[in-house]
Amino acid sequence: MNLLSSLSDLRTKRLSLLGTVGLVPTMGYLHPGHLSLVSRAKEENDHVIVTIFVNPTQFGANEDLSKYPRDLERDLNLLSSLFSPSSAKELIVWNPSAETMYPPGYQTWVEVEALTNPLEGAMRPGHFKGVTTIVSKLFNATQPHKAYFGQKDAQQVAVIRRMTTDLNFPIEIVVCPTLREDDGLAMSSRNKYLNEAERKAATVLFRSLSEAKKLYESGERDAEKLREKMKEVLASEPLANMQYISCADYDSLEKLNVISGKTLLSMAVFIGKTRLIDNFVLG
Amino acid sequence: MNLLSSLSDLRTKRLSLLGTVGLVPTMGYLHPGHLSLVSRAKEENDHVIVTIFVNPTQFGANEDLSKYPRDLERDLNLLSSLFSPSSAKELIVWNPSAETMYPPGYQTWVEVEALTNPLEGAMRPGHFKGVTTIVSKLFNATQPHKAYFGQKDAQQVAVIRRMTTDLNFPIEIVVCPTLREDDGLAMSSRNKYLNEAERKAATVLFRSLSEAKKLYESGERDAEKLREKMKEVLASEPLANMQYISCADYDSLEKLNVISGKTLLSMAVFIGKTRLIDNFVLG
Repeated sequence: MNLLSSLSDLRTKRLSLLGTVGLVPTMGYLHPGHLSLVSRAKEENDHVIVTIFVNPTQFGANEDLSKYPRDLERDLNLLSSLFSPSSAKELIVWNPSAETMYPPGYQTWVEVEALTNPLEGAMRPGHFKGVTTIVSKLFNATQPHKAYFGQKDAQQVAVIRRMTTDLNFPIEIVVCPTLREDDGLAMSSRNKYLNEAERKAATVLFRSLSEAKKLYESGERDAEKLREKMKEVLASEPLANMQYISCADYDSLEKLNVISGKTLLSMAVFIGKTRLIDNFVLG
Repeated sequence: MNLLSSLSDLRTKRLSLLGTVGLVPTMGYLHPGHLSLVSRAKEENDHVIVTIFVNPTQFGANEDLSKYPRDLERDLNLLSSLFSPSSAKELIVWNPSAETMYPPGYQTWVEVEALTNPLEGAMRPGHFKGVTTIVSKLFNATQPHKAYFGQKDAQQVAVIRRMTTDLNFPIEIVVCPTLREDDGLAMSSRNKYLNEAERKAATVLFRSLSEAKKLYESGERDAEKLREKMKEVLASEPLANMQYISCADYDSLEKLNVISGKTLLSMAVFIGKTRLIDNFVLG
């Protein structure tokens, strides 16, 4: 494994890589969801670059930047376990500092418009501006052939696909399924914040989505009925505090009245002080 | 020469190019200034991509998009004359349509902040947002090692250098000197708009900059004195209508009181209905 921190070291390394490169951008504190992206990238490319960077510009003023979990040594051990030392495939880990990514005088931003207005964008002003800017920088710095993202962050996936097409990045965006704990809770670095009672209560997101999906599978196509069902299940959990629930078109993220094509059910819910998101794709 | 219009044809061609690639982005209606960029790109790279695209998003509502001069056949002849048919160096001309660059649903923008506020940015709201967005798209589509811009558009050069650094584009920005007519008028596609009397009057930009430079060379370091001199010379030309004159730091574009380091003298002047810009770099 190659652990690099400066941009110039990354550029030198990148120029030496022959064949295809898969990028897995992360904020670290890796869980099996991240590792599934790395494994997929390893299967599909000659080399893999994993970036570990807790990007300050995608956190709001009242969000959890300072207490976001970090453990580089643990992350590196997890990543090493996926690559045998004798493998011809190289694993490069880039762990730049905030000063490397945003030096004094920094003043350039990438923004996607309509797709960032609803859902997470409405609740977290400026979040996607930070995401699209850092992902553009990571794309340019690592020059991958494919980049891997989890379906867990459904709106992020939609926004990055749009940005990639709009800005002509010659990169294939690969979206990988959400990994879940045995009881259905979507894996997330933020699950670490939950105490025992909250951890049990947190399954309500999965239960709520599952009940709405059952309705859909029984033939219901009235989007409002699915939204009502999700609300009802969330309301049954005392520790859960719904921020939003949505039944929207998968590509445009526009609110649906009647379900016809590919559809995104999504939600953000506070469990105690911890904000969790989850989603199902229908159709 | 290869003339391409679709993005997929460009991508296929780009993947076939071995060695280094120089990019010269243009809006067409080429003059010797553009051709000097192409010649420089040819000297310094294995292959050259020239883009010809009149970018609608960098024109304001009251600007000259619809009447901006276009003559693709003339441009192609001029470019062909620089590359012998037997040369191993390939010339690729990419001439995409507005629909290729901004298809329905397009919604992503690249913006540079402080550097775009003064001078051209103050007079042409939204202009640099259009420039940085299209240049990002051209960089991603053509993946050059070096990109060539003329010093004539001094603020554009400063903004693109900043954007390239900030977004980690692995591209060297090469800035080439302004080419001038025998009487000093900076070459520009817009000079074609001038009638005979205006064409003579248009030399006032060069004369104004030259007089200010003389002051500098005689030891004057009071920026206001240079600005006064530029105004005085412009005021002597009845057909000229000054929009702004500036004496600013070359990198930050901040207004100077005292000249010490590298300095940009610049101006925008209407000659009749035609808006012309020019600049000198001091120090």
